[in-house]
Amino acid sequence: MKKKINIAVIGLGNVGSYFCNEIVKKRSDILLKTGKSLNLLYVSAKNKNKKRPFKFKNKQWILHPLNITKDPKVDIVVELIGESNGLAKKIVVSALKNKKHVITANKVLIAKHGNYLSYLAEKNKVNFEYEASVASGIPIIRSIKEGLISNKIFKLIGILNGTSNYILSRMEQTGKEFSEILNEAKQYGYAETNPKSDLNGDDVASKIKILSSLCFHTLISKNNILIDGIYNIENKDIINVKKLGYRIKLLGITEMINKVIFERVHPCLVDINSYIGNINGVFNASIINSFPAGLTIMQGEGAGPGPTSSALMSDLYSILRGNIKYPFIVPYKLRKKIKQFNYSNYSYSCYLRFEVKDKPGVLSSITKNLGENKISIEKLMQIPDKKKQTASINIITHKTIEKRIINCLRKLKKNKHIIKSPTFIRVGDFNGN
Amino acid sequence: MKKKINIAVIGLGNVGSYFCNEIVKKRSDILLKTGKSLNLLYVSAKNKNKKRPFKFKNKQWILHPLNITKDPKVDIVVELIGESNGLAKKIVVSALKNKKHVITANKVLIAKHGNYLSYLAEKNKVNFEYEASVASGIPIIRSIKEGLISNKIFKLIGILNGTSNYILSRMEQTGKEFSEILNEAKQYGYAETNPKSDLNGDDVASKIKILSSLCFHTLISKNNILIDGIYNIENKDIINVKKLGYRIKLLGITEMINKVIFERVHPCLVDINSYIGNINGVFNASIINSFPAGLTIMQGEGAGPGPTSSALMSDLYSILRGNIKYPFIVPYKLRKKIKQFNYSNYSYSCYLRFEVKDKPGVLSSITKNLGENKISIEKLMQIPDKKKQTASINIITHKTIEKRIINCLRKLKKNKHIIKSPTFIRVGDFNGN
Repeated sequence: MKKKINIAVIGLGNVGSYFCNEIVKKRSDILLKTGKSLNLLYVSAKNKNKKRPFKFKNKQWILHPLNITKDPKVDIVVELIGESNGLAKKIVVSALKNKKHVITANKVLIAKHGNYLSYLAEKNKVNFEYEASVASGIPIIRSIKEGLISNKIFKLIGILNGTSNYILSRMEQTGKEFSEILNEAKQYGYAETNPKSDLNGDDVASKIKILSSLCFHTLISKNNILIDGIYNIENKDIINVKKLGYRIKLLGITEMINKVIFERVHPCLVDINSYIGNINGVFNASIINSFPAGLTIMQGEGAGPGPTSSALMSDLYSILRGNIKYPFIVPYKLRKKIKQFNYSNYSYSCYLRFEVKDKPGVLSSITKNLGENKISIEKLMQIPDKKKQTASINIITHKTIEKRIINCLRKLKKNKHIIKSPTFIRVGDFNGN
Repeated sequence: MKKKINIAVIGLGNVGSYFCNEIVKKRSDILLKTGKSLNLLYVSAKNKNKKRPFKFKNKQWILHPLNITKDPKVDIVVELIGESNGLAKKIVVSALKNKKHVITANKVLIAKHGNYLSYLAEKNKVNFEYEASVASGIPIIRSIKEGLISNKIFKLIGILNGTSNYILSRMEQTGKEFSEILNEAKQYGYAETNPKSDLNGDDVASKIKILSSLCFHTLISKNNILIDGIYNIENKDIINVKKLGYRIKLLGITEMINKVIFERVHPCLVDINSYIGNINGVFNASIINSFPAGLTIMQGEGAGPGPTSSALMSDLYSILRGNIKYPFIVPYKLRKKIKQFNYSNYSYSCYLRFEVKDKPGVLSSITKNLGENKISIEKLMQIPDKKKQTASINIITHKTIEKRIINCLRKLKKNKHIIKSPTFIRVGDFNGN
């Protein structure tokens, strides 16, 4: 690798601007640690004149970002536009084909096209780096790729979305409802204007797909996986499960079960004294279970320009040190397509909350239905609301399979004493963390 | 780098044997991920015929390990003998001088000679890797070297000795005394036959010196640092501080204060609800505070052949990928010698326990002395022992400087009502963790 390296940054939002300032400010640190002299040759964004915390020179500005990817002077392209298709994809594909190293923070792009992009990177013998796409302040991708490289990983559990973790934590702290806290989160910059993918589980699903591929050396799965968000969680659930010794967290989980992969994203009841039950606010965390390293736990800030930039910089330094690696640890052609576990056979305890009319026989009609579906009860707590003449029936079941729960809830739809659609949240059984 | 790489392992104890089995078993994984064909060419140990879980062939055995370091066929030397001087040092020095990559788990060697060894590695353009020397199951060194490489690190707090953490945790769980739990720990293999350096803080001090150098790009300090172990902690302390909302942990801490380094190892009262207060048993943990990444927390198994081997393997894969790096992130000649903070000026709260005769005027004589030394009291708890006609006076002071405490305790030595040497433990003030 030559000594003087030219980099181009496409996308100058909060993260892009922060990152550009970092590479300019840290030029001497980069030289010191990598021996390379880095030059920010080009930048590009949708709007040249938008007010932003990074000031570029006129000669650095390129109107059509695709031109950057074809410019022979450019060595590294950093894509910070976002979205899985359209311009972002075109830029990354063209950059790799033109033998540029690529750094991106774009999780949806990787979750959707990461297989093809890693193939292109290997074919063109360049780096394709994406540390910032998952839990930015935690060097989780690098830790799986390097620190834990020789381990057999069995399972990864993560809190991978800061927005939803913030909302769940604040709901507990304040006793306020989802919508109110969501507004608060938007106000403080912890939720985007359109937070849909943060709250419906899609964001975590992209991250889990990327992590799965790293953990198990598989192709990124195209399967439909179990994805459930936090839209339906009410403060009542948070208060009631706390009485039962639990806290609700939106988890991303991936594991291998008999050579089949089981990726899932859903809110989960976790022990209030567990490690994962105590990750609050915008923090991200992950627990990796592997052999022979055992449990490896990592926690850090999951978003924001600073932590994201820290991750982008680690990609940059890695490229500058001249370390060309397979983007997903093993060569593309050796990564296997793998079947998804059929989650209707997934066996777990679950929490059910039924809002019912406070009349005799209602509880027994529910428990009877559970019994008919072979679902047995571990804990039951009935909380009456005398004013409304209703009651909240909270149940933790023993382990049962998903399809029985679905069946049971379907049947209970006809029960006229149940006044609203029941809440149903899975319970995690994580040993030792 | 050529395709076929020869490795030699010197030292075949629990870790060495485990590691040898790993590299033999994982030959195809290594080839897959690094493109290199690894051959365990030689092994050497003190006793050829000792029963061990790894079986080598006669032609692999070398009687004089120094010969290995000079053999032109050898590419990588793994030193797993231990000790800071003697054979281990000779082997590593000779290997580096003969342009062999070196992997070691030897923290005392690095803490003592790491500066010279890293100089040798750079001069001879080989890797000097030591991930296994600190908190083996946690990829902490690699995370500082790569994941957090562009960050400005301010402070690192760690639980870095599994043996002492196990003892403190078990003392709390069982109510038993130090010596009894130490015997238990030896029985279960959580303490070595001679656990002195684990318990007196020396082991953590070596690790803190290595981590400091990585965090702050300084030379490993030769300064005398504050080192205090857990020998004097009694169950009474553990019970009493719990009543005050604390737990006792042996911490290693390093931070920069006004361009001066402050490295220290001592038992510390930490908030019972904090993250660090809930790392129990043989686990290790570290909290790094940096900018712009924020807080990065890592936790994992700190010892044992499996986790140690995981760390050694990560060093090995890194070398095989051909990634030659400065052993301490920046070139040897640019690492600075740095002054140590004068810890007699260190300001903190502390916990004091006085065992006294239960007589009028005793408490006031102690508080008077504290007052004369300008030490003010935040919390005070007196627990009488009516049988013995004694009392235990437990005090948490407001922040004060170390030398005042030392002064005060020196004067109180003359107080005849104090029936044994007072206990004195510093209190941590860690925000947000």
